[in-house]
Amino acid sequence: MSGNTFGTLFAVTNFGESHGPAIGCVIDGCPPGLSLSEADIQGDLDRRRPGTSRHVTQRNEPDTVKILSGVYEGKTTGTPIALLIENTDQRSKDYGQIAQQFRPGHADFTYWNKYGIRDPRGGGRSSARLTAPMVAAGAVAKKWLAERHGMVFRGCMAQIGDIAIPFESWDHVPNNPFFAPVADVAALEAYMDALRKAGDSCGARIRVTATGVPVGLGEPLFDKLDADIAFAMMGINAVKAVEIGAGWNSVTQRGTTHGDSITPTGFLSNNAGGILGGISTGQDLEVTIAIKPTSSIISPRQSIDVNNQPVEVVTKGRHDPCVGIRATPIAEAMLALVVMEHALRHRAQCGDVQAASARSRDDAGAAAAVPQASFL
Amino acid sequence: MSGNTFGTLFAVTNFGESHGPAIGCVIDGCPPGLSLSEADIQGDLDRRRPGTSRHVTQRNEPDTVKILSGVYEGKTTGTPIALLIENTDQRSKDYGQIAQQFRPGHADFTYWNKYGIRDPRGGGRSSARLTAPMVAAGAVAKKWLAERHGMVFRGCMAQIGDIAIPFESWDHVPNNPFFAPVADVAALEAYMDALRKAGDSCGARIRVTATGVPVGLGEPLFDKLDADIAFAMMGINAVKAVEIGAGWNSVTQRGTTHGDSITPTGFLSNNAGGILGGISTGQDLEVTIAIKPTSSIISPRQSIDVNNQPVEVVTKGRHDPCVGIRATPIAEAMLALVVMEHALRHRAQCGDVQAASARSRDDAGAAAAVPQASFL
Amino acid sequence: MSGNTFGTLFAVTNFGESHGPAIGCVIDGCPPGLSLSEADIQGDLDRRRPGTSRHVTQRNEPDTVKILSGVYEGKTTGTPIALLIENTDQRSKDYGQIAQQFRPGHADFTYWNKYGIRDPRGGGRSSARLTAPMVAAGAVAKKWLAERHGMVFRGCMAQIGDIAIPFESWDHVPNNPFFAPVADVAALEAYMDALRKAGDSCGARIRVTATGVPVGLGEPLFDKLDADIAFAMMGINAVKAVEIGAGWNSVTQRGTTHGDSITPTGFLSNNAGGILGGISTGQDLEVTIAIKPTSSIISPRQSIDVNNQPVEVVTKGRHDPCVGIRATPIAEAMLALVVMEHALRHRAQCGDVQAASARSRDDAGAAAAVPQASFL
Amino acid sequence: MSGNTFGTLFAVTNFGESHGPAIGCVIDGCPPGLSLSEADIQGDLDRRRPGTSRHVTQRNEPDTVKILSGVYEGKTTGTPIALLIENTDQRSKDYGQIAQQFRPGHADFTYWNKYGIRDPRGGGRSSARLTAPMVAAGAVAKKWLAERHGMVFRGCMAQIGDIAIPFESWDHVPNNPFFAPVADVAALEAYMDALRKAGDSCGARIRVTATGVPVGLGEPLFDKLDADIAFAMMGINAVKAVEIGAGWNSVTQRGTTHGDSITPTGFLSNNAGGILGGISTGQDLEVTIAIKPTSSIISPRQSIDVNNQPVEVVTKGRHDPCVGIRATPIAEAMLALVVMEHALRHRAQCGDVQAASARSRDDAGAAAAVPQASFL
Repeated sequence: MSGNTFGTLFAVTNFGESHGPAIGCVIDGCPPGLSLSEADIQGDLDRRRPGTSRHVTQRNEPDTVKILSGVYEGKTTGTPIALLIENTDQRSKDYGQIAQQFRPGHADFTYWNKYGIRDPRGGGRSSARLTAPMVAAGAVAKKWLAERHGMVFRGCMAQIGDIAIPFESWDHVPNNPFFAPVADVAALEAYMDALRKAGDSCGARIRVTATGVPVGLGEPLFDKLDADIAFAMMGINAVKAVEIGAGWNSVTQRGTTHGDSITPTGFLSNNAGGILGGISTGQDLEVTIAIKPTSSIISPRQSIDVNNQPVEVVTKGRHDPCVGIRATPIAEAMLALVVMEHALRHRAQCGDVQAASARSRDDAGAAAAVPQASFL
Repeated sequence: MSGNTFGTLFAVTNFGESHGPAIGCVIDGCPPGLSLSEADIQGDLDRRRPGTSRHVTQRNEPDTVKILSGVYEGKTTGTPIALLIENTDQRSKDYGQIAQQFRPGHADFTYWNKYGIRDPRGGGRSSARLTAPMVAAGAVAKKWLAERHGMVFRGCMAQIGDIAIPFESWDHVPNNPFFAPVADVAALEAYMDALRKAGDSCGARIRVTATGVPVGLGEPLFDKLDADIAFAMMGINAVKAVEIGAGWNSVTQRGTTHGDSITPTGFLSNNAGGILGGISTGQDLEVTIAIKPTSSIISPRQSIDVNNQPVEVVTKGRHDPCVGIRATPIAEAMLALVVMEHALRHRAQCGDVQAASARSRDDAGAAAAVPQASFL
Repeated sequence: MSGNTFGTLFAVTNFGESHGPAIGCVIDGCPPGLSLSEADIQGDLDRRRPGTSRHVTQRNEPDTVKILSGVYEGKTTGTPIALLIENTDQRSKDYGQIAQQFRPGHADFTYWNKYGIRDPRGGGRSSARLTAPMVAAGAVAKKWLAERHGMVFRGCMAQIGDIAIPFESWDHVPNNPFFAPVADVAALEAYMDALRKAGDSCGARIRVTATGVPVGLGEPLFDKLDADIAFAMMGINAVKAVEIGAGWNSVTQRGTTHGDSITPTGFLSNNAGGILGGISTGQDLEVTIAIKPTSSIISPRQSIDVNNQPVEVVTKGRHDPCVGIRATPIAEAMLALVVMEHALRHRAQCGDVQAASARSRDDAGAAAAVPQASFL
Repeated sequence: MSGNTFGTLFAVTNFGESHGPAIGCVIDGCPPGLSLSEADIQGDLDRRRPGTSRHVTQRNEPDTVKILSGVYEGKTTGTPIALLIENTDQRSKDYGQIAQQFRPGHADFTYWNKYGIRDPRGGGRSSARLTAPMVAAGAVAKKWLAERHGMVFRGCMAQIGDIAIPFESWDHVPNNPFFAPVADVAALEAYMDALRKAGDSCGARIRVTATGVPVGLGEPLFDKLDADIAFAMMGINAVKAVEIGAGWNSVTQRGTTHGDSITPTGFLSNNAGGILGGISTGQDLEVTIAIKPTSSIISPRQSIDVNNQPVEVVTKGRHDPCVGIRATPIAEAMLALVVMEHALRHRAQCGDVQAASARSRDDAGAAAAVPQASFL
């Protein structure tokens, strides 16, 4: 209710600050019987962690996750899964200066005004470091959704600053530090190097998808699948826009183009991005997000301090010149958490539907090629 | 939990179908002592209602609202406010044909698969008619926020199909059927007339803002003000994208440009759209949404029926050629509901903060020109 | 969140005041495909309604329920079910006098202080009349639980004032105005007549049970089945105590007596009341509640008015001399709502468990006689 | 939603198992600016912890709490407060035998059936050890409520098995191992010694109160203060009954006795237990609970194993012969958590009420002596 729990049936409660002793989360509602170990989670954490290339922050955090509860003899028991990540590299001295100042583009000003107090060490609670526990929780959701429903969650970089990145293949994504779906990232490297030398930063556009999502997930009127995805994505640090399917292109499309035709063997296009009326269609979920340029830059910025006096802020320390670069596994995780939530919700209310639906098709002597609800 | 309640502290539970006996909502959590009558609500409902120009559906619904509870002698009592709108113009004969077919771009296919049953009359529950109770609830929120905090919510059309609409003045918005902020809408009228003759439809882009929002609203990590706005907007029928502040432009901006500078007398720009770290900055909230073209068009479309047989769908009946036209008051209402929720949440947790914050400023002998939390 | 919604997955939002135009509720989360008409609901409402004997209030309300939404061609669609009951017998003149006074034992004083305003007509929102929509919602839950799981919910009077009522048979319950499980109620009638003549009122003890509840319902640590039952029961107007199973007798029992022995064919006793560790055991749920004497009595009482001046309060009007008499169907309904909620919750998280559980038993070549989870 | 979070605005998410590496909780929604250190929490943990007398389990756990987040320079920041208690004395060998058996009176049978898997070490998740994090969270709530509103929470033993304990003075409570409000506990010691020698256990009755609670807390219709107290108390391990105020005595009371008279200087009695219509009256909250006898006893009990075969269960290990003895600080903590939640909720919706209420009194030229809402 104070905003630190994501989800309701698969509820992830996040805690910690950038430079406190530890960060972590508690997952409540995980189905029992899922095989789970730290190794199942560590992989995605390693994809997100800092210090892996010269294009991201040089803070060196191993981000090793420990399971404190909810798993017995290698299987989830249905009780809360507490995940702990200790903070090991906390150079608080880098941040001491800014305790009295508000960095432009950061949450310093708003936290201080909202709470009357803030933890300034490394951005405290507003640090993107707090996405790590969500990546960990997302790994648990991904595993259950993969094993139970065969779903796959993938993301890639679609644009860095001015450079749009064409989609060549998912196979390239793990082979470069940008999560770019292209074989050759030389241009991206040069672009980032120039930016870093200029003491500036840039934004990014990320695409994230889910395949294997069955028809029927989403709870209208309000808890629509697309609404919950928008909520999840806009809640990621630095995100300023979210699109589903055709997104902004919908504005200039005609109705004769936008509405995806349906055939006995499936849809002919996916302008809907896999969602109609807030409910999944069985097609791939297609989501795109815009990420603003990093606010922590060494170029001096005009601001005020806690006494409302003008100051010039120069942010030293170790920062990502494009926070979007590390956002891909985060966006995947958040999408998986949304789908997980809705898979459980759907089963709660509509767990009996399959029979009726199958009967209806049987009566007609025909089977639909589009995916069918299969939650019983 | 099944998705028909919006908000938690100011919780609006929506019910009804397009062609059932009535639609409505129950508002739980309204502060007591607010002067409220049907007249306070009817104004916004009239702005949204159909049949007001040749550019929107000719369905003729007066959309007269009745207050069933929660108000005594003209004031809210703090108990649930039930609002009822009877459906009066239900030409169900127009829709009988489509009970067995799935209209492309509509929720027919997904509702049928999710629930195993659907009310096909006028789109049933998935009809945009169900936004009317939200406009009514939004009017209650707007009234409290205006009287208690001086907030103003406004929206306007920014683009219809291919025609971008410059912002001239809020004063023009009520004077044309498009909610366009321009004096001359002849081009828009011609564009819509041509579209209607072609049996086609188009999308739209809507801008919605809030002024007077104090600093401090929003609950990170997840229930950020921008995340909740994205949730609210993406949940409106036909919305496919949401931007906050600079939105997609953030991708190509540099950090030296995007981060809004702060001075003792306020911010120098508003790329943030009034939100930093998920918390309001005291600047105007700036939101833009993309609305897809109407899916109900008379041009024939390729689809299937409930037996998975191919069919050609032609949607007759009375439909808006651009559903975006009537979306402006809806978007305003949803924004007001989000802000209302967060105003109450903030007061719950941080109701004591002002004293501390004011003391801190007094100690320094300086008063901040930027808006301060004032929830005590 | 402001307390007018009961349940989360099967969420019932209640609205209305005793003398407003209507009362009702919205049920969100009902599984689709359930046959439902007004007649399925009216029966329980008739059991609860006033004016049926000389031992209850003579207010004459038909309490006719209308379904406004969520049902199409006689079946639930999975969308919100709005139920409306119009108030027809509103003799507000009986209550005008007390608008400025606080009746002892009533909520007048607390509502006025909490909200700064209250609807005094017939107790307004605090009237037991608001239990009618819960009885209606409970009837929907009972129907689904009966059809899907074979559950039966029953209640009876266990004590009126000083008269303890032995349990003879459920068959007697519908045959007397007290819901007493005995053939001869002459003593009860005489007791009530004397009480009414004395201008006084008395309390009651009600027993309510559920049979056919499968093992496995309840969500520890907090949302235990017994905790949620206690919440539901204590929330009924005038309830002051709740017991599960052996209840207060547990205090003086020994461990060797209290813990119910288990055999391959079932439990040997039910001190647990059907719940262990917050989860149903498969035995009958056994609940007892204490209801305080009616606070509205014609004997003069000492109190104050809104100006803190001493007054003598005499409550005229039409009141039940023992509100417990009409509480039996209410308690049944609330128990059914709790079980319904947990049936859906269990299916959400543990919908896959049966297979594992059945396999484990198969491996052992033995089938448990105690009920098994069967939610797939 | 899976039941491991208590509260909504002051939300405590509990995790851990009796013999896992650690137990703990995350508190979300604590007001910022509260002075808080481990020492503020440890006191109540020490009152609850095992091993303090021969009358409780000899498991020796220091139950040392660590604050992992949410506190900066000794003050709460408004972000989640994670509390960690490491398990140090985990003699799992004591419990190995029972992994395949269901102990009568325990949650073994229900957990195994619900989840298809359970952690049998020390009762796993169903152990009363999981009340420790609630005592810790309750200490935080108590501190805020004491500093902000002057509230005091106290509990004492009212009955152990057959021995009713008269109330002499709160001063005696900390001076004996039973939390008994009497000077001489020799009879209790003898009773417990005999019980332990007999290999048996007994139940208990606990009284818990709150003083200083202002009028106005509680959210009818459902989230009534008494309903939430019943929920909290019944959710404590081994509790089988809950009373508010006169409780079961209400059944035999007359209306002329039960309804507490009101005078300009306050109420004349407290049968209501401090709550009318679900809202606090300003009087002391008075709650009583019944706790069943410990189920873990060395006397042999009849049961079955996971293969539904009959077994004889003898529970060795270290157990409390009367779990009620250590329940007093737990009940206090749960009551404090309920009141804390409602203090924040009330401020959210009714934060403006005081002015209106005060004005009304000023107009009348009289001030009420009964406590007034003071949440602004």
